Amino acid sequence: MPHYTAPTKDMQFVLHDVLKVSEQKTPGYDELDRDFTNAILEEAGKVSVEVLAPLNPVGDEEGCHLENGVVRTPKGFKAAYDQMREGGWMGLDADPEYGGQGMPFVMGSAVSEMFSAANMAFNMYPGLTHGAYSAIHEHGSEDQKAMYLPNMIEGSWTGTMNLTEPHCGTDLGLIRTKAEPQDDGTYKISGQKIWISAGEHDMSDNIIHLVLAKIPGGPDGVKGISLFIVPKFMVNEDGSLGDRNALSCGGLEKKMGIHGNATCVMNYDGATGFLIGEMHKGMRAMFTMMNEARIGVGIQGYSQGVVAYQNALAFAQDRLQGRAVTGTVAEDKPADPIIVHPDVRRNLMDQKSFIEGARAFAFWSANLIDKARRDEDKASDDLVSLLTPIVKGFLTDKGFETTVLAQQTLGGSGFTQEWGLEQFVRDSRITMIYEGTNGIQSLDLVGRKLAMNGGQTFMGFFEMIKTFIKESEGNDTLKADFLEPLKKASKDLQAAGMYFMQNGMANPNNALSGSYDFMHLFGQTCMGYIWARMAKASYEALDAGASDKEFYETKIATGKYYMARQLPATALHLSRIESGGDPVMQLDAANF
Amino acid sequence: MPHYTAPTKDMQFVLHDVLKVSEQKTPGYDELDRDFTNAILEEAGKVSVEVLAPLNPVGDEEGCHLENGVVRTPKGFKAAYDQMREGGWMGLDADPEYGGQGMPFVMGSAVSEMFSAANMAFNMYPGLTHGAYSAIHEHGSEDQKAMYLPNMIEGSWTGTMNLTEPHCGTDLGLIRTKAEPQDDGTYKISGQKIWISAGEHDMSDNIIHLVLAKIPGGPDGVKGISLFIVPKFMVNEDGSLGDRNALSCGGLEKKMGIHGNATCVMNYDGATGFLIGEMHKGMRAMFTMMNEARIGVGIQGYSQGVVAYQNALAFAQDRLQGRAVTGTVAEDKPADPIIVHPDVRRNLMDQKSFIEGARAFAFWSANLIDKARRDEDKASDDLVSLLTPIVKGFLTDKGFETTVLAQQTLGGSGFTQEWGLEQFVRDSRITMIYEGTNGIQSLDLVGRKLAMNGGQTFMGFFEMIKTFIKESEGNDTLKADFLEPLKKASKDLQAAGMYFMQNGMANPNNALSGSYDFMHLFGQTCMGYIWARMAKASYEALDAGASDKEFYETKIATGKYYMARQLPATALHLSRIESGGDPVMQLDAANF
Repeated sequence: MPHYTAPTKDMQFVLHDVLKVSEQKTPGYDELDRDFTNAILEEAGKVSVEVLAPLNPVGDEEGCHLENGVVRTPKGFKAAYDQMREGGWMGLDADPEYGGQGMPFVMGSAVSEMFSAANMAFNMYPGLTHGAYSAIHEHGSEDQKAMYLPNMIEGSWTGTMNLTEPHCGTDLGLIRTKAEPQDDGTYKISGQKIWISAGEHDMSDNIIHLVLAKIPGGPDGVKGISLFIVPKFMVNEDGSLGDRNALSCGGLEKKMGIHGNATCVMNYDGATGFLIGEMHKGMRAMFTMMNEARIGVGIQGYSQGVVAYQNALAFAQDRLQGRAVTGTVAEDKPADPIIVHPDVRRNLMDQKSFIEGARAFAFWSANLIDKARRDEDKASDDLVSLLTPIVKGFLTDKGFETTVLAQQTLGGSGFTQEWGLEQFVRDSRITMIYEGTNGIQSLDLVGRKLAMNGGQTFMGFFEMIKTFIKESEGNDTLKADFLEPLKKASKDLQAAGMYFMQNGMANPNNALSGSYDFMHLFGQTCMGYIWARMAKASYEALDAGASDKEFYETKIATGKYYMARQLPATALHLSRIESGGDPVMQLDAANF
Repeated sequence: MPHYTAPTKDMQFVLHDVLKVSEQKTPGYDELDRDFTNAILEEAGKVSVEVLAPLNPVGDEEGCHLENGVVRTPKGFKAAYDQMREGGWMGLDADPEYGGQGMPFVMGSAVSEMFSAANMAFNMYPGLTHGAYSAIHEHGSEDQKAMYLPNMIEGSWTGTMNLTEPHCGTDLGLIRTKAEPQDDGTYKISGQKIWISAGEHDMSDNIIHLVLAKIPGGPDGVKGISLFIVPKFMVNEDGSLGDRNALSCGGLEKKMGIHGNATCVMNYDGATGFLIGEMHKGMRAMFTMMNEARIGVGIQGYSQGVVAYQNALAFAQDRLQGRAVTGTVAEDKPADPIIVHPDVRRNLMDQKSFIEGARAFAFWSANLIDKARRDEDKASDDLVSLLTPIVKGFLTDKGFETTVLAQQTLGGSGFTQEWGLEQFVRDSRITMIYEGTNGIQSLDLVGRKLAMNGGQTFMGFFEMIKTFIKESEGNDTLKADFLEPLKKASKDLQAAGMYFMQNGMANPNNALSGSYDFMHLFGQTCMGYIWARMAKASYEALDAGASDKEFYETKIATGKYYMARQLPATALHLSRIESGGDPVMQLDAANF
């Protein structure tokens, strides 16, 4: 069975050495000193290791079962859920007005990396609830908030998001689910939704579905979509539960991974729904929490890489096979541990340098969300809007790749269920698809985010890098190993932006054919930037005489690897982008 | 349920337009005219589509079951196996002296691409038999050949290869299975082997195990390993089956994919074995058929890409979602088919351009095997030895990636069992691992193959490319779109070889840290070469007034895409290689 170790120390490094959270003026950050965040992370780590991780293979093996309309979650899930609920983990970064602990999103993100790494399928239940909570919190009326939020924050009710229908996923304008207005101000919701994560299960007293539907007579397409609260059990005025609503789970999807999470077909047969926010403005309501949710999925993506790497590393240090090419290492053993072999190390370094960079990238983005929310800082809001599709698309693509690399470290064992690596591969795969496929992320990035504020946010990114480089140039080693490669990556990114500007107007295919490569080129540049920041922070700690010298030296060495071996990918992405739309679009659809 | 279409036309193109098989002087090739190969491929396609493909999801869903020592294969497998056997497919390229059809390996490879694409788990049963057949055919005594081969070729007996033990896979020198010599010249085999594909099943009358074991008192390490025939049922002199041998299946592995194939723990409890070939020369015997087997796995790898692409394409042409950015295409429909979107095309072109190149690369290699075998052509033998680790490592890595891309084309549907794409991902994953992990392939390439014949084979590769370019330079379009990029890739490959020469002596880590990238750099260069050959052949066909103009134009356009968008990866691999061993090796094992 695979193991999981909470990377508290690495998280503390990002929070304090790199982001210096406790020095930030953002409201709520003043309490984030090293001891406090350490205590939270230690506790979250304990829950992850002791409660969630052991259930991960159980959930995979057993899956969810639908019997007479009731979904049975895997053995142990309900008890673990109750334990998490009692521990107050559900409302960690939720509004204190409704019972939440009000912690910053950056802390919620750190904890969620741990929970996801330990058991992604399980953590989707509270995760989805959090998304529904955010939508109601942002767009619900005072009554709605008072009625639903406390129980959702406490965890006795969970939530879902109902977007997809059999004939439409990305193109929500095609939605057919209907919402007929009733005399009492409620709506009758009818239609079928598919792929509804946590749509039905046995862990909570009620499930609050958020459903996109069309009110007859409204505008065509996405402009005619409204958002509704459709509870599984009606809620009485005193807060007690009333009748069962006219909705049901019509089936469970059999799928590649996340077996522990119930992916439901949901049938709404004239169910009572309550409009949330404005009529026909459902898409807007759904999208305001998009940045958060997509960053959450980016975190899920690399979190699977984290746990996969830990298990690959343990295997590589333990498995004896062959001798080091430069001479025997373990004289007393029949063979050397395979970590002595250069190609095994190459593989491990690919994993390690990615996940540590990914974590810093994700926390940095979460920090920007806090600044945007709590400081109402427009620059941070814009920057994180620009970065969100990259956090989602790049970190999940690379997170999945990392699980595949880790699986490869184990050779044949990696293919067996017993070692658990193959589950990480299967589970992480969904992160590239849901919450908007990564292709859609790249379209959002190139088609929408680049042009935001007349391109100024994009240009501001380069200013940020330039400033950072200027401020950091005193250290020669930092300069050669980190700043120069970062400069090169940033130049490639600028050239790609320039190419789009010069060729995208004439033919949008020239830009959109390169969108996926652009997302990766941008992602690499962000990784280069954040690794340079981590290296700088490490040099500073060493200069200040940090006691844990090895930790910081290892950090620098890992960063060097990333800069030397991964960052040069920017040139490849640029060359693909500059090959333009013709190679991509030249075939008739019929000739494929 | 996914569908499969046999790519007969594309195969015919490679065989006749590109390789011009029927013009080759290789013995047995004279009968390979267009009509003959077409007839074979049509028939193989029919079996693939009608018999094998429908059983593929069945095998995945049901898997194999061990009950009282007997392995039950999925429903329908036995009937399909009998049908294949009666069709004579088992002995297609086997020696006519023992009942085979004696067809060239290139034809066996083409047919095996189809069978694997249709049902990889199923095709492993005959595939393993073929491997065991080859070993006995090459190294067995006349008596052994007469006793075992006819039934193996006919298919009523199957075969296995027993190498791995719990504590050793790659490092076979650590083998513990013992072979005690008996007075009658036989051996008593005792030990445990794991991950034995097709080790036990219910489809054949007998199973002929080839087992690596150590005869006590022999040399240490791999030099003391011998190879044994250990039949499940003893074979009487008259060919009838005798007693059950002392061997049994001790368990079935639960694994990520290829559920339809029984992966067995095999226990040998003093089983009677017969030495094959010379004492202590078992490794050599095992390795002589390695080129063939590894090319076979390379074919499996991209074959999963082939079928995955076909299903992704059908989905992209059918699924309506959004409108083309350059204007509505399907006016009469609520949305355009997603194939109009540039990023969907980019994804499909990545798949298409890879699988078509991979097929040509694999057939070219199989052709070299035929020349080596049937012509005893040393240059071909050397070249295919050099290329084999690349065919295995590169084509399976990219084949797996292709299945992941295809899965992505389907969005959420790709993650569900229903559409079948996720099975292709899971099944193809093993090809990167078995028959020597891809890391081991890269080690074989850099550590052994490069230096073969004092480096002359490697240098000969460049001569071949140079000659090809010189012969092809008349066509300006070919030159700009194919020959120039090929020249560039080839230059990168040469530079990498040079780097190893100049830095690998001082410290082998400088070479071995780059071995994986070298394998991919080399693979890309081979793809560039074979795509240039395919383009040249297409231009020639067009010049000759070929009736199927669209086919050849599509081929050229697909090749252009590969050259423009994939081939530039060589520069990235080179830059990683040239970053040397330090970034990879700098960390202490304890600091990972």
